[in-house]
Amino acid sequence: MPRVSEAHLAARRQQILDAAARCFVRNGFHQTSMQDVIKEADLSVGAFYRYFKSKNELITAIAGEKISQATGLLDQLLALDPMPPIPEILKRLLELVDAAAEHDGTVRIAVQVWGEAVHDPEVGALVAEIYGRVRERAVLIAERARAAGQLPPDADVTGAGAAFFGLVQGYILQKVLLGGTDRRTYVSGVRTLLS
Amino acid sequence: MPRVSEAHLAARRQQILDAAARCFVRNGFHQTSMQDVIKEADLSVGAFYRYFKSKNELITAIAGEKISQATGLLDQLLALDPMPPIPEILKRLLELVDAAAEHDGTVRIAVQVWGEAVHDPEVGALVAEIYGRVRERAVLIAERARAAGQLPPDADVTGAGAAFFGLVQGYILQKVLLGGTDRRTYVSGVRTLLS
Repeated sequence: MPRVSEAHLAARRQQILDAAARCFVRNGFHQTSMQDVIKEADLSVGAFYRYFKSKNELITAIAGEKISQATGLLDQLLALDPMPPIPEILKRLLELVDAAAEHDGTVRIAVQVWGEAVHDPEVGALVAEIYGRVRERAVLIAERARAAGQLPPDADVTGAGAAFFGLVQGYILQKVLLGGTDRRTYVSGVRTLLS
Repeated sequence: MPRVSEAHLAARRQQILDAAARCFVRNGFHQTSMQDVIKEADLSVGAFYRYFKSKNELITAIAGEKISQATGLLDQLLALDPMPPIPEILKRLLELVDAAAEHDGTVRIAVQVWGEAVHDPEVGALVAEIYGRVRERAVLIAERARAAGQLPPDADVTGAGAAFFGLVQGYILQKVLLGGTDRRTYVSGVRTLLS
């Protein structure tokens, strides 16, 4: 038997995650069975279970991938000197949200995962961990903004980081559940409030 | 047979809603059956179905009740002249969120309903309608703030209303899913960003 290459494993893994995302977006997390995902991914049961053992593992992988994009962007912006103003950073993050929404609808999965996290301790721990990573960076951004004089010297950076992160979550929720507010309007509203 | 009084009907209805809220908080919306709620409410099946025919009707009633409290508060504050500053209005709304969280845990249900709204069109329409009512008022608040000179004359009030509402939703999400940010810190962070 030939040895399976790393690239092949990664491609197979991505094929499964894409199939799972399509199922979750289409039918919801709860209404999707492992069997549905296996069928959508067009794999044998044996091949599939080598990669993922449960729906929670699939959700963990999908969420982790998306959050890595967000934390990667924030790390990039944090590395800039001077760091861009806070509304500009928000705009860049919301561009990422919109791109994910258009590309594969995964922001719709995010909102489902939040609902799931409320009563599934495993999903709850995952969500607390990955969103904690984003909020940590939001606090760092507030610290940098304070140091640069963008925020007052006595700024509550813990609170400001949480509020900044709250603005992102609120955008996602309104985009998925309410509609009627596009990114430009939202960012312009944030600029207005922060002016 | 004696006629059933309005007060009796209202009390029975509330008894069911309280029982449903306890079940949804404890076991999640999906894992709760109508049978569970009937048992928790300690009613006969016949008596129960006179009030509610489905879980979606229960969720609609619970969400509607909570949102009425929020829109009622916003209407009160909008009626004041001068209207309180925006961070003060946010603080009052988050006090309501915290009171609901301590009283019956219904903010945990809210996050579940958001997840449900993503793939259940009936719940989706409900959520769009009731959160639309909150966002409308948030836009009115931004308009009043602009008229009073709290926001610049060219303020984007539609965006500012959406961002204000986003801050409330972000607070709820972080409270339920992440912890680690209390109301005082969050409001102080918003004041910092808006300063």
